[in-house]
Amino acid sequence: MNSQISDLKFFLSPRSIAIIGASENFASISGKPLHFLIEHDYKGRVFPVNPKYDTLGGLKCYKSVLEIPEPVDLALLAVNFRYVLPALKQCVEKKVKFATIFASGFAESGEEGKEKKKQMAELAEKSGMRICGPNCQGSVSLKERVIGGFSASLGVKPLNSGPIGYVTQSGALGYSIFSLAQEAGVGFSYVASTGNEVDLHTLDFMEYMLENADTKMIISYLEGIKNGKQFIRIADRALELGKPIVALKACRSEIGQKAACSHTASLTGSDAVCDAFFRQKGIIRVNDIENMIDIAALMQRIPALPQGKGVGLITTSGGAGILMADEATDMKLTIPEMDPESRKAIMEVIPPYGSALNPVDVTAQVINEAEDFMKVLQIMVKNPEIHALVIVVTQITGESGRRMAEDIVKISRLTTKPITVAWTTGDKLVGDNLKILSDGGIQYFKSPVRAVRAMGALMKYTDFRKRTLAANTGFIEKDAIKTRESAISFLTDKEKSLTEHQGKELLALYSIPVTKEEIADSEEKAVGIASAIGYPVAVKIDSPDILHKTEAGGLKLNIKNTSELIPAYREVLKNARSYNSKARINGVLVQQMISGGTEVIVGINNDAQFGPVVMFGLGGIFVEILKDVSLRIAPVTIEEAIEMIKEIKGFKVLAGARGRAKADIMAIADVLVNVSRLAVELEDKIAELDINPLLVLPEGQGVYVADALAIKQ
Amino acid sequence: MNSQISDLKFFLSPRSIAIIGASENFASISGKPLHFLIEHDYKGRVFPVNPKYDTLGGLKCYKSVLEIPEPVDLALLAVNFRYVLPALKQCVEKKVKFATIFASGFAESGEEGKEKKKQMAELAEKSGMRICGPNCQGSVSLKERVIGGFSASLGVKPLNSGPIGYVTQSGALGYSIFSLAQEAGVGFSYVASTGNEVDLHTLDFMEYMLENADTKMIISYLEGIKNGKQFIRIADRALELGKPIVALKACRSEIGQKAACSHTASLTGSDAVCDAFFRQKGIIRVNDIENMIDIAALMQRIPALPQGKGVGLITTSGGAGILMADEATDMKLTIPEMDPESRKAIMEVIPPYGSALNPVDVTAQVINEAEDFMKVLQIMVKNPEIHALVIVVTQITGESGRRMAEDIVKISRLTTKPITVAWTTGDKLVGDNLKILSDGGIQYFKSPVRAVRAMGALMKYTDFRKRTLAANTGFIEKDAIKTRESAISFLTDKEKSLTEHQGKELLALYSIPVTKEEIADSEEKAVGIASAIGYPVAVKIDSPDILHKTEAGGLKLNIKNTSELIPAYREVLKNARSYNSKARINGVLVQQMISGGTEVIVGINNDAQFGPVVMFGLGGIFVEILKDVSLRIAPVTIEEAIEMIKEIKGFKVLAGARGRAKADIMAIADVLVNVSRLAVELEDKIAELDINPLLVLPEGQGVYVADALAIKQ
Repeated sequence: MNSQISDLKFFLSPRSIAIIGASENFASISGKPLHFLIEHDYKGRVFPVNPKYDTLGGLKCYKSVLEIPEPVDLALLAVNFRYVLPALKQCVEKKVKFATIFASGFAESGEEGKEKKKQMAELAEKSGMRICGPNCQGSVSLKERVIGGFSASLGVKPLNSGPIGYVTQSGALGYSIFSLAQEAGVGFSYVASTGNEVDLHTLDFMEYMLENADTKMIISYLEGIKNGKQFIRIADRALELGKPIVALKACRSEIGQKAACSHTASLTGSDAVCDAFFRQKGIIRVNDIENMIDIAALMQRIPALPQGKGVGLITTSGGAGILMADEATDMKLTIPEMDPESRKAIMEVIPPYGSALNPVDVTAQVINEAEDFMKVLQIMVKNPEIHALVIVVTQITGESGRRMAEDIVKISRLTTKPITVAWTTGDKLVGDNLKILSDGGIQYFKSPVRAVRAMGALMKYTDFRKRTLAANTGFIEKDAIKTRESAISFLTDKEKSLTEHQGKELLALYSIPVTKEEIADSEEKAVGIASAIGYPVAVKIDSPDILHKTEAGGLKLNIKNTSELIPAYREVLKNARSYNSKARINGVLVQQMISGGTEVIVGINNDAQFGPVVMFGLGGIFVEILKDVSLRIAPVTIEEAIEMIKEIKGFKVLAGARGRAKADIMAIADVLVNVSRLAVELEDKIAELDINPLLVLPEGQGVYVADALAIKQ
Repeated sequence: MNSQISDLKFFLSPRSIAIIGASENFASISGKPLHFLIEHDYKGRVFPVNPKYDTLGGLKCYKSVLEIPEPVDLALLAVNFRYVLPALKQCVEKKVKFATIFASGFAESGEEGKEKKKQMAELAEKSGMRICGPNCQGSVSLKERVIGGFSASLGVKPLNSGPIGYVTQSGALGYSIFSLAQEAGVGFSYVASTGNEVDLHTLDFMEYMLENADTKMIISYLEGIKNGKQFIRIADRALELGKPIVALKACRSEIGQKAACSHTASLTGSDAVCDAFFRQKGIIRVNDIENMIDIAALMQRIPALPQGKGVGLITTSGGAGILMADEATDMKLTIPEMDPESRKAIMEVIPPYGSALNPVDVTAQVINEAEDFMKVLQIMVKNPEIHALVIVVTQITGESGRRMAEDIVKISRLTTKPITVAWTTGDKLVGDNLKILSDGGIQYFKSPVRAVRAMGALMKYTDFRKRTLAANTGFIEKDAIKTRESAISFLTDKEKSLTEHQGKELLALYSIPVTKEEIADSEEKAVGIASAIGYPVAVKIDSPDILHKTEAGGLKLNIKNTSELIPAYREVLKNARSYNSKARINGVLVQQMISGGTEVIVGINNDAQFGPVVMFGLGGIFVEILKDVSLRIAPVTIEEAIEMIKEIKGFKVLAGARGRAKADIMAIADVLVNVSRLAVELEDKIAELDINPLLVLPEGQGVYVADALAIKQ
C-alpha cells in the first residue's frame, strides 16, 4: 500500500468518533448517527457534541469538540450549513483527523455557498485534516460496524458485511442502491458517500478500498471524474489485483449532464472519453442500479471469477435457452457447441426432443429421473471451453425442483467454475428451492437475460484482464527524455501552431513515417528537390500564417514533371500572397505523393480529466458523417492500438472488403502507439495534433503522414 | 368481428370440456386440468374421459369421448403422444369443436413425429375441428375461469383477471412469464400456449383477443412468425383500435435460431425483416421477460395511454434524475424544460439547491412541508408538453413517505396523464407506502431506469400511432389493375430476369423516373439516339445473356460526342461477343448520363413470411461495408418512406452535410412508395429487384434510375 493512500484508515476505521450537533431525536439527521453507532455496537469511542445536552444516548455530551479529553479520529458534522465552518475550525484545533459534513446548501446554491466551499477546501489543504462532503450521507465500515451516516437504510439490522466496496457521489440514490443491494444479499466492506467533494473524493476511497484485503470488487455511482490520472492509476492497479470495478456512470445524455451541473455544480467531462477509458481498462460499465447489484451479488457468491468467456447454457425450456443465447450473443460471449461425445452422453439422459447443443435443453422431463440432471451438469462443467454455467429452471416445483436445486449446489462444490441460475417462477410456487440455492451459495435471478448479463459482465472482465496481462504492455521509454528534448526545440518559438513541415519533423522524431519533403525557396531548388524525391510530387505553401492551405489556394497535387512543377510553384506563391498579403512565407514545400493508399485520421486531444487521448478513424464520411472513431487514453499499447483499429465500424475497409488489398494495420498500430508516446511526453507542450490524412498502403508496405497540424499548449 | 376469426370463441370460452386421459393424480399433467377447473370453479360442463375410472373428482368419468351424452366444445388431450391420433379421430366423430394436445414428441423428434404432425394437420383441415398444439401447455380464460392447462402456475388462487391478452409459443417459459406477471399484479383476459402449431397458431389467438372488449393490450412470446400477412393485418387493426402489441421476439442470434429449430422444428425467418415490421407497425419489441411484464403492469394501471412522448421527471435525488434523463434520451423521448413561470413556482416550494428544470429535483427536503410536493406535482401535470410523469422517491420513509405516496395517488385521480413511480428502497424500509400506491392504482418499480423504460415504451407507441393515423396512408390504387396488366406483358417470356432496359420500362410503368435511353441496332441509330438524348451518354450491351455488363466489358460511360460514340459502340459489341459468343444480343443501349447525383440503392425482396420487403440504402461502402440499410414491408406509405430514408446512419449525406446540396429526399420517397406498389402488385411475378444506383439530384431536381436488375419468380 503506498503512503499516499494509507491515510484513509482512520476515516473508515476510526478509533473514536465525535458527532457535532448530535441530537436526542434519533429519527432526525443529527440524531441517527449516534443511534446507529450504538445500535450496531460500534466498538470505538463515541463523543456526542451539543451544548444543549449533558448526556445523549447514555453517553456524556460535550459542549464543544475542544472539550473532548481524548483524540478524535473522525468528526461527523451534523450541523446546519451556517455552522459548518466554525465547527470545522474547532476540529482543526482539536487535531481531528477527518471530518464528514452532512449539510447541503454549499456548491449547489449561489455565491455564498461557493465561497464557503472554497474556504473548506483551503482549510483541508492547510490543516491536513481531510474533509468528506459536504452534502454527503456519511460512510460506513460494515465489518467494524462504523455506521457513520444518517441514511434510513443503515437502521436495518443486521447489515450484511461482505467483499464489495462501494463509493457513491449521490447520497440519496447512493444509499437507495445500498438498501436494495443489502436486500439482494450483497455484503459490503466499506461504503463511502462523497457528496460535493471539496477535498476527499470517490477515487480516494476507491483507491483505499482496492488495497483492502476484504474487498474483492468495487462498485460505484459516478457523475463526474475528479482526477482522471488517479483513475487511470486505480484502474491499472485493480486490473493487476484482479478486483473488478463496476461503474454506474451517469450523465450519458446532455440533459443528464445539465442536471448534474445543477445539483453538484461540477463538470462531468466527456462521456465518450470516459467510456473509452472504461473499455481500455476493463472497468465494467452499467446503466442501471439493478445490473450493478446483480453483478455484485453474483461476484460475492462465486468461488472464483470465470476464466474466460465461453458460457454453458442449460435450460428446462427451449424458449429460455433462446433468450439466453440471444443475450450472450449480444454481449459477444462465446457459446461453444458441445463435442459429439458429450452430445451423445447428454442425449442418453434427456428426451429425444431435447437438445444437446449449447444451449442444452434438458426439457422438463429431465426431472423424472433423479440422476439425469446431475449427469448433464457434470458433462457441461467438465468441458474445457466452458468457463461458467447459466442454468434456467422454469416451473419445476415440489420434489423435482428441490432435487434440481440440490444438484446445482452439489455441482458448484465440485468446481471453481461459477454457476448462476434463473429460476423463472413466481414466489408462491417456487417454495424453498431458492433458499436451497441461496444457502448453498448460488446466486439466482428470475430473468434468464439478467442472469446472463451479470455472468457475462464477469466473463468479459476476466477475458479482457487475461488478454491485457498477457500483452506486452508499455511502450519503449528508454529514449523518452532525449526525444522530448529534441522535440521541445521545435516548440520554443511563439507561434500557436506548427507548420505542416514542422509537424512532420516532430512526428518523425517519434518514428512516425512521413512523406519525403523539403522546403524550396526558389524554383531551381524546387526542381532539385522534386527530382531527388521522384515524381509525382505535391507543392504546398509553407507559412505559419496560413493553416488552411486548400482555402488559400496554396496547394497543388499530383505534379508529374518539371514543366508542371514551375507553374505550380509560382501559382501557390501567388495565391498565398493574395490570400494574406502579410503572411510570412518560409517557402514552398515540395512533397512526395503517395498513391493508392487508404486515408485514415489519427489525432490527439487533451481531455480535461484524463489528459492526452488518442483518436483513430477512417477518412472522409466515416469521421465526418458517421462519427465513426475510436478513442483511448494515452499511452496506448500495441494491443490497445490494434483494438482501436478493429473497433471502428468501417474496419472492413481496412481488412480487405470486396477484394481490396488488406491495409497495413500493424503500421497504423505503430503510429497510434508512437503518437500516444508523443502525447504523453509532450502533454505540457502540445494541445492538439491531427494527422489527416495518414495514408495506409497495403499490408507490409507501411503508412505515410501526408498532412499534419499540431497546436501548442 | 369478421367471421374468419370469431370461431375461436368456444375454444377460449367453451361451454363444455372433455379431458381425455384425465387422471386421479392431481399432481400429474393428466390430473391437473381437472383439478384446476374444479378448484377455480369453472361454470361449464366437465367430462373426464378415462376407461380406468368410473368417477373422477366427483364427476362421472367416461370410457371414451364418444360416450359423452352432450356436445363438447373443447377436448383436452392429456394422453401420451402415441394415443393422440386415435383420440383425435374420436373427437372428430363426436363433433368436438376444438382439441388441445399437451403431449410432446412430435415435430421435435424425427420422422415418426413429423408424419403424425402431418396427419394431425390434415385431420384438422378435413374435419373442421381446430387443433391447438401439440407440445403446448393449454389455454386459459381468466374471467370465465376456464383453466384448461397443466402449468403449476395455474394452481395459485386467486388468479388475476385483467385487460392483458397473452399468446406464447413456448409452454414452459410462457407460463413462467405468466407466473411472474401474476405476482407483479398483471391480470390477464386470455392466455394461449400454442406449442408446435400444427393448426391454430399464436396469430390466430392474437387476432381473436384483439377484438375482445376486455383486452386492452396483447403481449407475446414469439420465436417464428407463421403467417406474415396475417400479422400485418393484425398489426394494422391493433393500431386502429389503439391496443398495443408487445413482442418478446426471440431468435435474434444465429445460435438462438438454431436452438429454436431444434426445439420446434420451425424456421424463424429473417429477424431483420421482422424487426422492420415491428417498427413499421408500432409493435413494441422487448428483449427480456421483465421489460414485457413491466409494460403490461403499467398498461393495466394507467387511466389512458400517454398522449405523446414528452416525459416529466420528478426526483428526490439528483442522481436518480440523471439516470432517468439518460434513459429517456436513449429512448428518444422528449424531456421538455419547464417554462419560466412554472420554474419560479417550483423554486418557491423546493430548496435553493433543488432544480426546477426537468428532471425536477425536489430534494429530500420537500418532505418537510406537507403541501410542497403536491404543488410540484400539480405544476408538472398541468404542463401541456408533458404527457406522463415518472417520479423517483429514494429513501423517504415513515410519515413523509406515506404523505408522498398519498399525494401521488391523489394527483393521479385528477388527471388522465399516466404516472408511475420508482421507489428505490428495500422492502424492509418502505413500509406500507408501496401498498398505498398499489391500492391507489399506481404501478411502481424499484429502478428508475425500468420505470422510464416501461413508460417510454407506451409513450413511443402513442406517438407512433398518432403520426401513423394522421398520415395520408395507402398508395393510389386506382390504376393498379391496368398497371399490373401492362407490367405482366414484360414478364411473359421465358427469361429468368429482365434486361436493364426492360427493367426500366417496368419501373417507368410505376411512375419511377429512369434515364432516357433507347436500343440501337446500328451505329447510325446510336448516333441518332445520342443526339436526341444529348451528350454525354453511356453505351451498354443489351443482352438477356449478359447480366454483369462491367465484367463483360459491355459498358462505356461518359461519352462526350459522336467521335467517341462510334468506337465505344463497336467495342462493347466486340467485348460482349468475346465474353460470351453464344449470347443473344438485342443491340446497344444508348443512355443519358446524369452527373452530380448521389448514388442510393433501392431493392425489393420477397420475404418468406411477410412477402415483398423494400430496402433502401446509400451506395458504395454504406451498404457494402456498413450494412447501413432500412427495410419496410410493402406497401410503403410516403411517411414510412421518409422514415426509411431518415433511419439510415448515413442520412446526413443526403441531408446536406458539410456544405453539400441537400438531396431530393421527396423524390426518393416517391420511388420507395412506387417500388413498393410494384412489389405488391407483382408479388407473384417478381422475385427480386435492385435499383443500383438510383441517382439522386439536389432538392427539387429529382432522381433517375441509372441501372436496374429484376429477377422473375
